[in-house]
Amino acid sequence: MGVLIDGIWQEKDELPQEFGQSGEFRRVDSRFRDRISADGSTGFKAEAGRYHLYVAYGCPWAHRTLIFRALKKLEGAITVAYSTGMDSEGWGFGTRADLPESTPDPVNGFRHLHQAYTASEARYTGKVTVPTLWDTRTRRIVNNESSEIIRMLNSAFGGIAGDDTDFYPEPLRADIDRINALVYEKVNNGVYRCGFARTQAAYDAAYDTLFEALDELEARLGRQRYLMGRQITEADWRLFPTLVRFDVAYFPLFKCNRQRIADYPNLSGYMRELHQVPGIAGTVKPRHYIDNYWSIARLNPSRIIPRGTPVDYTLPHGRERL
Amino acid sequence: MGVLIDGIWQEKDELPQEFGQSGEFRRVDSRFRDRISADGSTGFKAEAGRYHLYVAYGCPWAHRTLIFRALKKLEGAITVAYSTGMDSEGWGFGTRADLPESTPDPVNGFRHLHQAYTASEARYTGKVTVPTLWDTRTRRIVNNESSEIIRMLNSAFGGIAGDDTDFYPEPLRADIDRINALVYEKVNNGVYRCGFARTQAAYDAAYDTLFEALDELEARLGRQRYLMGRQITEADWRLFPTLVRFDVAYFPLFKCNRQRIADYPNLSGYMRELHQVPGIAGTVKPRHYIDNYWSIARLNPSRIIPRGTPVDYTLPHGRERL
Repeated sequence: MGVLIDGIWQEKDELPQEFGQSGEFRRVDSRFRDRISADGSTGFKAEAGRYHLYVAYGCPWAHRTLIFRALKKLEGAITVAYSTGMDSEGWGFGTRADLPESTPDPVNGFRHLHQAYTASEARYTGKVTVPTLWDTRTRRIVNNESSEIIRMLNSAFGGIAGDDTDFYPEPLRADIDRINALVYEKVNNGVYRCGFARTQAAYDAAYDTLFEALDELEARLGRQRYLMGRQITEADWRLFPTLVRFDVAYFPLFKCNRQRIADYPNLSGYMRELHQVPGIAGTVKPRHYIDNYWSIARLNPSRIIPRGTPVDYTLPHGRERL
Repeated sequence: MGVLIDGIWQEKDELPQEFGQSGEFRRVDSRFRDRISADGSTGFKAEAGRYHLYVAYGCPWAHRTLIFRALKKLEGAITVAYSTGMDSEGWGFGTRADLPESTPDPVNGFRHLHQAYTASEARYTGKVTVPTLWDTRTRRIVNNESSEIIRMLNSAFGGIAGDDTDFYPEPLRADIDRINALVYEKVNNGVYRCGFARTQAAYDAAYDTLFEALDELEARLGRQRYLMGRQITEADWRLFPTLVRFDVAYFPLFKCNRQRIADYPNLSGYMRELHQVPGIAGTVKPRHYIDNYWSIARLNPSRIIPRGTPVDYTLPHGRERL
């Protein structure tokens, strides 16, 4: 890992502002926040072939954007570079025999994602993260905040997207935002607050918060098929990437070990049903989760990568009853 | 962790001789190898109240000796000190609010086990390990090799043991020795060869060997109730401590993650049946496995201890059919 300081790559594990006084992990806000719009009024018009996504299959935030690209049938309109993983210069692009789905960057030929950041802002200081959405026209980053990228993919590509399902429908927005906030804080980022805590107290608190939230979601999904009821929404697609990584990585490595998702009947059935939605299974690459998380040196100093990938998303989901 | 060098405690993670040229872990032989005998011809006569065991509930090698002490009903004849775990001076004794089964050393009042080693041999050089069997008469260590200690408990305490079951019966000895050798190398120590490997290649090899052996044991236990057939023997009690630690510690932390013991129907039923043998459940302390293994700094540099203990040994075992 590392960061850019004034446009220069520095190898360091973390930034001081990523940790609070009690050793708790605090995710730093994303910095590129421009928007694509259908009419181009934002300066970035939705056009087929114009935008390019930098992702890593391992990363749950990047996973959201791959899911929306698949759901909205934007594969032909938005190109993707799939990272080989983190090395001493951060997210890299190229080829790896043991992770064949990784690809060189087909658009810019960048070897590392930090090149996209300094190309956009020569003296950029901060983290270099996936997903990063790149504009081939202006040759700069549009946005690197996953929650905003998926909203653009959902609604800005009207005539271009091959599927017009709206995953953030007007009447449900307030409810979706409310559950998103809970899921983000306690679950999506909650697992990182367990795994990256610097003190026992910070970890203990994050663990309790995480499992309280999972218990609540389990109960909710015992009453209804999806988080918003009968309809799959953005809220479900923001929870899903954490669920598919949970038993493989967060349970063992991030010490989220009260129980597995497999031990929650509703959450696990729900996860399997979402996995069976057309286009989704192809975005789920558990071998990348192993590689991605066990490459974090401060958690796994030997850097030896576990050989097993003990997960099966393909069992019957049994959710039709709801 | 650490070692004694010429009788002086040195904080270091490991000894050079513990690793081979390919980064593979090699367990160093135990050094105190005297024997207790019924008639005292070995210099150490079996007597009630004379011998004292230093153990840690977390350690699988120590677990063997607690099992034999329970099976042979030697609780009244052999005292025990239960370690609070590893600290900067190795295995320690005292009290810990979060691990209430730990005890101060009731016999010698040692705060650390290395005191027993230097008391026995002032310039001792080597590792300080549990179990360690201490003689209160001569005030020195008799033996610190678990496989030998359990043989003594099995057969040397004739009139003192409250149970005369022989777990190493003459007609089965060659077969028991044969399976012991396989189980020791590939399973008992095999999990350590996964967890302590210094190179990916050494880990990969140990992992394959481990799961081949578990597959073989699973098949064997599908045909017969115990490793030797219809009778519980020493061979079973040497496998058991590894099985009860597997899903809690070896699977997540030692990267033995092809599958859990819970995913092996025969091995898991067998483990549960042995757990139900009178006296055994009290020797199984999963919270100590979490504490023990996650205290290994080179595997868990943050030293944050997982809050969960996701294991249940008490389900029905279903082994009566065999």
